[in-house]
Amino acid sequence: MSNIKITVEYDGTNYCGWQRQKNTSRTIQQKIEDCLTKLNKQKVKVEGAGRTDSGVHALGQVANFHLDVSIPVRKIPRALNSMLPDDIICKNAERVSDKFHSSFCATGKKYRYRILNRSFSSVFLRNFVYTIYKPVNFVKIKKVINKFEGTHDFSAFQSSNSEVSSPVRTIKNIVLKEKSPEHWIEITGDGFLYNMVRIIVGTLLEIGLDKRKSKITKILESSDRQKAGFTAPAKGLTLVKVFY
Amino acid sequence: MSNIKITVEYDGTNYCGWQRQKNTSRTIQQKIEDCLTKLNKQKVKVEGAGRTDSGVHALGQVANFHLDVSIPVRKIPRALNSMLPDDIICKNAERVSDKFHSSFCATGKKYRYRILNRSFSSVFLRNFVYTIYKPVNFVKIKKVINKFEGTHDFSAFQSSNSEVSSPVRTIKNIVLKEKSPEHWIEITGDGFLYNMVRIIVGTLLEIGLDKRKSKITKILESSDRQKAGFTAPAKGLTLVKVFY
Repeated sequence: MSNIKITVEYDGTNYCGWQRQKNTSRTIQQKIEDCLTKLNKQKVKVEGAGRTDSGVHALGQVANFHLDVSIPVRKIPRALNSMLPDDIICKNAERVSDKFHSSFCATGKKYRYRILNRSFSSVFLRNFVYTIYKPVNFVKIKKVINKFEGTHDFSAFQSSNSEVSSPVRTIKNIVLKEKSPEHWIEITGDGFLYNMVRIIVGTLLEIGLDKRKSKITKILESSDRQKAGFTAPAKGLTLVKVFY
Repeated sequence: MSNIKITVEYDGTNYCGWQRQKNTSRTIQQKIEDCLTKLNKQKVKVEGAGRTDSGVHALGQVANFHLDVSIPVRKIPRALNSMLPDDIICKNAERVSDKFHSSFCATGKKYRYRILNRSFSSVFLRNFVYTIYKPVNFVKIKKVINKFEGTHDFSAFQSSNSEVSSPVRTIKNIVLKEKSPEHWIEITGDGFLYNMVRIIVGTLLEIGLDKRKSKITKILESSDRQKAGFTAPAKGLTLVKVFY
């Protein structure tokens, strides 16, 4: 049995997220498992690095699976892509050590949140950006964005029903980029709580829209979800890269 | 009655092109007419600058219509967008002289053809680019592309069943741009024959793929459709701008 690591890109618009679910076959994990099981003629279980939510996209999701490979590993992407739906693509496959686990071995992740701020939407970007019609003051966002950097208790920035052992995470880097006509907020960290990126973005956008005065450090210290901003929509979010 | 000029953006993926048809309601013209007729409570006829084909997109299609406006003209885009499907957006509306006709008054058009040349497709771009898996020699294309510039008989570069009075057109500008990970071929001209842009692109791609030796000037002189390249797929093509 070989341990195979794959890198996957997907448009999450029409899926109920990454993770396999009982009530629907429309999950990315399920689609990839179905194809691998067909290829392998035996059930294959695929483990992903991150459980992206419904509507969230990926440029570089990573997953791994154990398989008796009958074809050269470099040919796996083509074989998979010939069976996968158009909105999921396997970009790379490589043999890795038996100890490799896409989720447990991950040392960090990079997310991108794409914003379109103008008076009309874009038909080409509509599924991949969050369109805001009111003018956002991005200069104001730029001034405060680095307050998120470093190691903090991010309790205020996680959805209330999540259960994790520790709410402490380290954000290595958070930047605002102008990518005309879009604005990108890119966040790299060692790990993220449930909805953490989307709540950080929602909070920053409320600052840019002059809807909040409370300072980021105060919100972090409060550990109170009610003090932070709204959860920005899933469709603006893309998992860019997983680090090992 | 006011004469209103609108600028429209659309994702042509799910439409049978711009022009109203008897057997389907899935045309851009029909969708806009339906919305305007609802707004106006009387039938409105919309005239477009160019009849984009099934699957072809637009960033700046122009159309005009005559209407007794009950709302300020600047509010027409918002009113229209609230009724139009997500893949059609009215970006602008303005009152113009009664003599203005979007098609007859047009002095030129700019098209963009988007190419993705790599070993795997892109889930985000798949409907808007033509993906070519074999390596294309773009340096070779760049060397010959300007042979299309100027006034020529473009008979060899039109689909055979088209009926126009004269096959002579002027290409003011044709350029190859690197827009990583894409390559764009942008063409500006006074007018275009049926499928002309897509056949020009198909011919250039065959040159870049080392599939043809015949020189562009020879093909132009031949006036023979058989001598030119294939018709590149509709989904890579976008109508960028109409000039007046």
